[in-house]
Amino acid sequence: MYNMDKLYEAVADRGHVCVGLDTAPEYIPEKERRSAATDAEAVFAYNKAVIEATADIAACFKVQIAYYEEMGLAGLWAYAATLKYLREKGALVIADIKRSDISDTASRYASAHFSGDFEADFVTLNPYLGMDSIEPWLKWADKKGSGAFVLMRTSNKGRQDFECLEVKGGSPPLAPPSSAPPAVASATPPLRVFDAVGKKLSELAAAYPGMYGYGAFGVVVGADPQSEEDRKEAAAIRANYRNLFFLIPGYGAQGGAASDAALLLTEGNGGVVNASRSILKAWQNSAAAKGVDSAGVDNNFVSASSRQAAVEMRDAIRRAAG
Amino acid sequence: MYNMDKLYEAVADRGHVCVGLDTAPEYIPEKERRSAATDAEAVFAYNKAVIEATADIAACFKVQIAYYEEMGLAGLWAYAATLKYLREKGALVIADIKRSDISDTASRYASAHFSGDFEADFVTLNPYLGMDSIEPWLKWADKKGSGAFVLMRTSNKGRQDFECLEVKGGSPPLAPPSSAPPAVASATPPLRVFDAVGKKLSELAAAYPGMYGYGAFGVVVGADPQSEEDRKEAAAIRANYRNLFFLIPGYGAQGGAASDAALLLTEGNGGVVNASRSILKAWQNSAAAKGVDSAGVDNNFVSASSRQAAVEMRDAIRRAAG
Repeated sequence: MYNMDKLYEAVADRGHVCVGLDTAPEYIPEKERRSAATDAEAVFAYNKAVIEATADIAACFKVQIAYYEEMGLAGLWAYAATLKYLREKGALVIADIKRSDISDTASRYASAHFSGDFEADFVTLNPYLGMDSIEPWLKWADKKGSGAFVLMRTSNKGRQDFECLEVKGGSPPLAPPSSAPPAVASATPPLRVFDAVGKKLSELAAAYPGMYGYGAFGVVVGADPQSEEDRKEAAAIRANYRNLFFLIPGYGAQGGAASDAALLLTEGNGGVVNASRSILKAWQNSAAAKGVDSAGVDNNFVSASSRQAAVEMRDAIRRAAG
Repeated sequence: MYNMDKLYEAVADRGHVCVGLDTAPEYIPEKERRSAATDAEAVFAYNKAVIEATADIAACFKVQIAYYEEMGLAGLWAYAATLKYLREKGALVIADIKRSDISDTASRYASAHFSGDFEADFVTLNPYLGMDSIEPWLKWADKKGSGAFVLMRTSNKGRQDFECLEVKGGSPPLAPPSSAPPAVASATPPLRVFDAVGKKLSELAAAYPGMYGYGAFGVVVGADPQSEEDRKEAAAIRANYRNLFFLIPGYGAQGGAASDAALLLTEGNGGVVNASRSILKAWQNSAAAKGVDSAGVDNNFVSASSRQAAVEMRDAIRRAAG
C-alpha cells in the first residue's frame, strides 16, 4: 500500500484539507513567543497547538522547510521535532522541499527526507532536470510506500515564463470521452512544458499504480485561476491526467477559492488542498472579530481558531466539490 | 562589487577549479573515520583537510547540501561548520542547494542561505517555477553582492525530457559576429526551454551588470558532451549568453574533459569548472598508484592527494582554454 493510497482514504474519511505548517516566529502570539526559551521552541509549541486542533479534520499536513531553514540549525531542530510529533500522531505529512538533483545526489536527498531526522511520507520535487531527477526517489516507494508531488503547473504569475511555454511536436493526452459535448470544437490543444511533465508523470504513475486509480507519485497543480481561460485549463488538466493525485496550493491567503480547488478534484477525491496562513494565522482574524486583545492570546486560542478555519475550509470544499 | 566580480578575479588569479565538497562519510579513510566522535565530525575534519590543501588553487568551493541533509541534524551542523571555516579562510563558496520556491517562501530561503548559519556567497537555483522564484534572491545582490547560478542546460541524460524541448515562437539570441564563417549555413536555430531560461537570465544579468561583463547572477551549464552535436550546442550557448558567468559541472568523475569545459569559457574566464569526487577521493587512486595500504591513510595523505588532483585539473583546463 502506497502512502498515496492512505492519502486517498484520508480524503474520503476527513475531506481535502492539507494544513500547511509554514510557521514563522512572527505569526506566534507575543505572550507565547516571549515565554519560550527560543524562537525554534516557540515554533514547535505553536505547531503542536495547530496539529492537535486539526489532526481529525486534516487529510494531511504539509511542512514548508524554507521557514525552518531560515532559522538555521535551531530551525531545523524545530522542523525535525514537528515531523516526529506528526509521526507519533499517525498523521500523513508532506515535506514541502521542492528538491531537484540527479543520480547519487538525488538518492542522498531521498534518504534524507524519507528516513532519519527529516522522515516524511511525501516530498515535493522540481522536475526541471528531467526524469532522472525523479527516479532515484522511487526506490522508497517500493521500500516503504513513500510518495512525491512533482511541480507541474503552479499558481504563481511566473508560471508563464517556462511552465506554460508551448512545446513543439505533440499534444496533451486526450481526455476520456465525456457525456457533455465539448464547449468549443477546438483544434488539437497545444502541448505546454507542464503537459510534458504531466505525461511523463502519468506514465510513471501507471508503472506504480495504487489501489484507487492514482499512482504512487502525483503532481502539484495550483488553484488560483486569474481568468475563465485559466479555469478551462484547470478542468482540462484534471481530465487529462486521471491517474495523478494532485497537491493543490493557492487556497485562502493566496487567493484561490473552494470552487477553484473543486475544478481539480475527481468525484470528490484525487487531490488535497493546502492552506497555510489562513489556518495558521486564523487567531488574528478571530481575535479581531471577537474584540480580544491580542496581548492576551495564547496557544489555546490559536488551537480553537485554527480548528474553526480548517472546519470551514473542509466544508466549503465539500460543498463546491458537490 | 558583486561576488560574481570577485569570482571573475579569482579565476584570473588562480584558474577555473571549483572544488566540490560533496563529502559522504564513506569517502573518509577508515582510520580518520574511526577516530572521530561522529561521522559529522569526521566529515568536517576531512573537508578542512581538503580546503587547506586547495584554497590557494581553487577559484571557489561548492558544497552540495544533499550529502549533509542525508546525515540529518548532525550533518547540517557539519555543513554550517564547513561554510564557517570557508568564510574564515576568505574563500568564495557556492551553496549547491538548487532551491525553488516563490514569494515569501523564496525570500525565506534567500535569508537562510545568504545569512546566518548557512551563509554562502552564491547559491544554485532551479528556474522551473518562473522568474518570480529567482527575483526574491536579488535583494541580497544589492545588500551584500550575493550571487546565484540558475540551472540552464545540465549534463545529465534527463535534460532531454524538459530542458531541451523545442519551444514555439522564438529563437536564441544571435551570437555576435565572428571572424570565422559559420560551420553550417543553418536556418534559424530552434529555441529550447533552456534558451528561454538563458534569455531571461541574460536580461536579468544586464540589469545587474558587474565590473567584468558578467551579471550578478549566472547559470549552470554542464560540460559532458555525448556527441559532436552536443559540442556545437555548448559552443553556441557560450556565444549566445556572453554576459552570463557559468558554473560548469560534469568534469572528472562525471565524464567531462578539460576540452569540453573549455568550450564553455570565454577568453580564459567566464566560468568555473566543478569537480567533486575526482578531488575529494583522489587519495584512493593515489594510494593505489603508490602501493600505500589504505588502512594507514590519514587526512595528511588526503590533503596531498587532493592538492595534486586540483593542480592537475587547473593546468589541464588552462592548457585547453589556450
